[in-house]
Amino acid sequence: MKQGRVLYEGIIRTVFEKEGKIFTDTGTMVKENDVHWLPPFEANTIFALGLNYADHAKELSFKPPSEPLVFLKGKNTLIGHLQETIRPKDVTFMHYECELAVVIGRRGEGIAEKDAYEYVKGYTIANDYAFRDYLENYYRPNFRVKNRDGSTPIGPWLVDHGDIPDPMQLTLRTFINGNLVQEGSTSNMIFSIPQIITYLSEFLTLQPGDVILTGTPKGAVDTKVGDEVVTEIEGIGRLVNRVVAENR
Amino acid sequence: MKQGRVLYEGIIRTVFEKEGKIFTDTGTMVKENDVHWLPPFEANTIFALGLNYADHAKELSFKPPSEPLVFLKGKNTLIGHLQETIRPKDVTFMHYECELAVVIGRRGEGIAEKDAYEYVKGYTIANDYAFRDYLENYYRPNFRVKNRDGSTPIGPWLVDHGDIPDPMQLTLRTFINGNLVQEGSTSNMIFSIPQIITYLSEFLTLQPGDVILTGTPKGAVDTKVGDEVVTEIEGIGRLVNRVVAENR
Repeated sequence: MKQGRVLYEGIIRTVFEKEGKIFTDTGTMVKENDVHWLPPFEANTIFALGLNYADHAKELSFKPPSEPLVFLKGKNTLIGHLQETIRPKDVTFMHYECELAVVIGRRGEGIAEKDAYEYVKGYTIANDYAFRDYLENYYRPNFRVKNRDGSTPIGPWLVDHGDIPDPMQLTLRTFINGNLVQEGSTSNMIFSIPQIITYLSEFLTLQPGDVILTGTPKGAVDTKVGDEVVTEIEGIGRLVNRVVAENR
Repeated sequence: MKQGRVLYEGIIRTVFEKEGKIFTDTGTMVKENDVHWLPPFEANTIFALGLNYADHAKELSFKPPSEPLVFLKGKNTLIGHLQETIRPKDVTFMHYECELAVVIGRRGEGIAEKDAYEYVKGYTIANDYAFRDYLENYYRPNFRVKNRDGSTPIGPWLVDHGDIPDPMQLTLRTFINGNLVQEGSTSNMIFSIPQIITYLSEFLTLQPGDVILTGTPKGAVDTKVGDEVVTEIEGIGRLVNRVVAENR
């Protein structure tokens, strides 16, 4: 099953897809462009992985991490499908990052790799924009790089785990204004979904609504004001975002 | 005003202090040790500062940061007054960190330093335990260092901003089993409370319930299983925590 969340006639509604059409939970058919899309689930803790694809680490001249390089993101970063992300006035390099987002459905700690998928509710797409300029610092904090308001479009659909035959064999693609700029496969993750879940649950309790952004493959290209950025993942969907100017 | 939150007879209640006695919102007097203390507010995003006291940066052989070194913490880390924190079996150095926690009360972005305190609801005490072992990594991620379940006691009281004449002139102290092990003053922060609020609100919107842990002064000492760790801040209160063994 695929489900999303939209604001429709002033009310937050769950929507479903059926034969290419979109229906609200009350059965009303709506058009993709006539509703305001929200993140497809209510997020609790947002985990994200840095440099989890070797080709991406290499293009940034970083060495691949020897253990999962996890950071947290604030809920202020999440926006829905077809929304806008601001390009700050003072940055010279803002790049999209198409990422498979793994949504946790069950409370768990000390989870073995073989049981990890039992804790997964489903998958969605995140575009974890990076404002690379901010990384130039002795301590390499990625806080400002990854925590601006609305800098992480996510959605449109949360797709049930059971509907994805193998989440470690999915093609990811990003298009800017219709041109393919990034292509990779989840099979090239350094740390797999079960490995990440096991790693996290060794020292903290995963909760329903927790989400893990699993990293992005090679293909970092600067985005400009006015760009339409489409991130898509095989079997999950297609997430559209527009880059807009900062005006303040 | 000072307010806390406790679980009393199975219900979460707000409590107040009056002449050294504790009363629930329904007027019942309760004893400090007869209730289960919760964090004194419902946290939204948890910001924390690394190395925000020059003497602490020096004792860890780090150079003081040139801009606020901010990281995020998960809500899984927060526990209340008089609760227990686990010392993991595999660490050799777990130290307390007595910190002034600044709780945001009003939504704001682009906040000027001179207006910063208008956005502060009040203050409480956090003991932001660090598991220093986990920092030994090329990327120096502080994720595992700072995100274990229940590793951040906070409370017991949220004290109104208006009741604290100058939050940048408060003495912080930590005691292990009654012995003073850490003493400092918020006057020695590298980045002041208004500077931190201005810094954050330049690129994200602060929300009610957001909390900023402002860093800890010098005095990192290892804690052992069985230790009673008391962190106290002048005018804010006294937060008690016990270190317990990991048994799994």
